[in-house]
Amino acid sequence: MIAALTLPVVLPVRDRDVVLRRADASDLAALVALLADDPVSAARGDRADADDEPLYRAALLEVVADPSNDLLVAEVDGDVVGTFQLTRIPGMARRGSARLLVEAVRVRSTLRSSGIGTALMRWVTDVAAPATGSSLVQLTSDNARTDAHRFYERLGFAGSHRGFKFPVPTRPASG
Amino acid sequence: MIAALTLPVVLPVRDRDVVLRRADASDLAALVALLADDPVSAARGDRADADDEPLYRAALLEVVADPSNDLLVAEVDGDVVGTFQLTRIPGMARRGSARLLVEAVRVRSTLRSSGIGTALMRWVTDVAAPATGSSLVQLTSDNARTDAHRFYERLGFAGSHRGFKFPVPTRPASG
Repeated sequence: MIAALTLPVVLPVRDRDVVLRRADASDLAALVALLADDPVSAARGDRADADDEPLYRAALLEVVADPSNDLLVAEVDGDVVGTFQLTRIPGMARRGSARLLVEAVRVRSTLRSSGIGTALMRWVTDVAAPATGSSLVQLTSDNARTDAHRFYERLGFAGSHRGFKFPVPTRPASG
Repeated sequence: MIAALTLPVVLPVRDRDVVLRRADASDLAALVALLADDPVSAARGDRADADDEPLYRAALLEVVADPSNDLLVAEVDGDVVGTFQLTRIPGMARRGSARLLVEAVRVRSTLRSSGIGTALMRWVTDVAAPATGSSLVQLTSDNARTDAHRFYERLGFAGSHRGFKFPVPTRPASG
């Protein structure tokens, strides 16, 4: 957890109260289901396979224990409907600015366009970034997610960069 | 520093030996000069102004002390000619994969196309990623850096994502 963040918080979204809180081990099944409830993630192997549960459990516990990371869940009426991860990264660039990286943003597919995603990202830019001394919020979004790109642009994000990924072979290359 | 990384290392690059080691406080001036030796960084405010030294010094000490981050410098004949930052990020996505984020890659402008950048990034993908248990290496590169995009693609990175940045106002917005 990132100690500078005050959680939980209640975010009013239209006619709902959305509770934003830190994830814990009891959220494992809901988090895995949210990952699999997304065609891009599913294509990368996040299919909620029972065999993968130990991998997801270990990752959840590691993120929760890390002082530079926070894994958050959004609840409506006690039901987990969204998640995202924050990483605070200190750095020299931009006159010694810390930045806040957002990863793995997911909102339940039946609740898209409900205003929940907007409320979560507004909390990141308006509350979490200043609280962690971050002067920049950054994220990458798969080229295929054109709806998400418009969503981030509406929130004031600039698509100023290209995001590059290198998949590491399971066995390190020799030589 | 990221304890799992064994440093320093010597990387043979054509007719040179490049020493890759962790930065320390004595590298401050060289690091600030590398940031300013780049038109995109300079346009964002990294101009090696003497007034900014306290900001850069505090950032350098914070990165060096952080167990999820490493700030590296590349030396040729005792001269700092390159730098980059690594951040190890645990996560749930991609079946509980950790990822290694690369930020602030700079090679002295007079040494571009010397093979040094390639050697540094090969060390990241082939040595640092497996050593830190990361199954993905990721970075973003400003849309204006088309030469850098070709460089990363030659190394096997896929430009599969768009990178979004949100500059946080100096004073938090009210309301």
